[in-house]
Amino acid sequence: MEMSESLQRAGIQTAVFHRGSLPANRWDPELSQMMLEELKANGVEFVPNAETAAIEEGKDFPLCAVTNQGKWEADLILFAVGVRPNVELARAMGLAIGPTGAIAVNPRQQTAKDNVYAAGDCCETFHRVSRRQVNIPLGDIANKQGRVAGRNIGGRPLDFPGIVGAQSFRLFNLEAAATGIDEKEAIAGNFSPVSTLVWGNALAGSMGQQRIGLKLIADKSSGKLLGAQAVGFSGAVSRINALSVALWSEMNIDEIGYLDLAYSPPYGGAWDIIHNAAQALRRAI
Amino acid sequence: MEMSESLQRAGIQTAVFHRGSLPANRWDPELSQMMLEELKANGVEFVPNAETAAIEEGKDFPLCAVTNQGKWEADLILFAVGVRPNVELARAMGLAIGPTGAIAVNPRQQTAKDNVYAAGDCCETFHRVSRRQVNIPLGDIANKQGRVAGRNIGGRPLDFPGIVGAQSFRLFNLEAAATGIDEKEAIAGNFSPVSTLVWGNALAGSMGQQRIGLKLIADKSSGKLLGAQAVGFSGAVSRINALSVALWSEMNIDEIGYLDLAYSPPYGGAWDIIHNAAQALRRAI
Repeated sequence: MEMSESLQRAGIQTAVFHRGSLPANRWDPELSQMMLEELKANGVEFVPNAETAAIEEGKDFPLCAVTNQGKWEADLILFAVGVRPNVELARAMGLAIGPTGAIAVNPRQQTAKDNVYAAGDCCETFHRVSRRQVNIPLGDIANKQGRVAGRNIGGRPLDFPGIVGAQSFRLFNLEAAATGIDEKEAIAGNFSPVSTLVWGNALAGSMGQQRIGLKLIADKSSGKLLGAQAVGFSGAVSRINALSVALWSEMNIDEIGYLDLAYSPPYGGAWDIIHNAAQALRRAI
Repeated sequence: MEMSESLQRAGIQTAVFHRGSLPANRWDPELSQMMLEELKANGVEFVPNAETAAIEEGKDFPLCAVTNQGKWEADLILFAVGVRPNVELARAMGLAIGPTGAIAVNPRQQTAKDNVYAAGDCCETFHRVSRRQVNIPLGDIANKQGRVAGRNIGGRPLDFPGIVGAQSFRLFNLEAAATGIDEKEAIAGNFSPVSTLVWGNALAGSMGQQRIGLKLIADKSSGKLLGAQAVGFSGAVSRINALSVALWSEMNIDEIGYLDLAYSPPYGGAWDIIHNAAQALRRAI
């Protein structure tokens, strides 16, 4: 998405082809709709439900993408095909590979062989919310695991405490962030998810309007937060970071509804959208 | 401070007289220094160590402030004299007044008389970090206490869970935020405070520079976080909100050093300043 922005700034006409119907599958359709509007507002064409069959030579431009939605000619075509861990070396060494397809490690980042450590995108990570091993290739996780592996190799033992699935990106002027698990993952993890999506202002009313949407997902029986998603022109990452710490501590939505946050009008209302969403979710249970 | 900004925008020459040597006593001098620079950068004169003896009639302007630092003439003089709870009615009713001078309440916002409730700036609040009753007149606390009182009066019992002392304000383009307690309050609370102040970038290096300073205070014996202060052109409130949730959950700095936050370059580095400060503090203990 940051690539699109650079292209746009350079005055390059940009189209995004997406297999789904809306951008950013992880986010609720109502939140992704805001991303779609931001793409359009910045002159980016979004082609949903697109499957690319071939890249051919073009007539007016060097390249032509042949898709189920038609043909598009272009100077440059970028593919985002996802990430899969390269475990060739690990397999050759006889290391255990986990069910995610990534290298299995213990909290010390040790593989099945005592003196072989793995860290980063190639290995599994303990997800503190789903209580499962996952493979989430993000740079901050890789950095932390690398330090943990180094500490253990260097004789100053340290356990990697796991992750909660926090993530963010910027789309032009829009902040998108999410943490924890969604309803589908919650059901797979034997939770009973219940969710709410509220729209609000990232500022106090007296400071103007900065629209923000926040979705919270909680477990019906325990009331514990399971996940959160936010999109807005400001404050989305801030809210998701606070909620990531709440997830880390296994907070329930009653506590979250009364959390003490650093209120002042330029940064939120006296009742923050976090409070409002948690209390709306409590009423929904 | 927001008043100064409005005056400045209107082209009004502004001077701030302060009893201390730097703005915003709650923040570490190194962080307040950044506030002082922001005031100066926006054409506001800051007069430190000022005590006002009298307001007289001026020669060129209607008013003249007579201070120990000299005389200043002005059209308008604003005094910020602090806030003290008005407990006159409470005293007349025979309600208990706490050691802070505010009305004593239990977690249901009940005063010493069963059928009399108090909420907001006039009453005490339980501070989850210092484990003491405090009086912090902030609108978000007042709102929450009001709802708790209403719930209890209405027969749907609810306890107010207390606060961690989160607070923020904007000074022109600068974000200032703090949470928890400082070294002085920590010593008064029988903790053994140890602190560190780190400077960093609120963005990843590839996205430019947004200077941010973060001070963390922890208890030497338990390693638990006691407080945090941040100042920066972006991301300060976000960090303090995440750390407020960490304080709420009584997290120690080892956990904070490896928290999973929503990393992406426009909003921070792979090692966030929160991680760097927590790890620096661990090394200092």
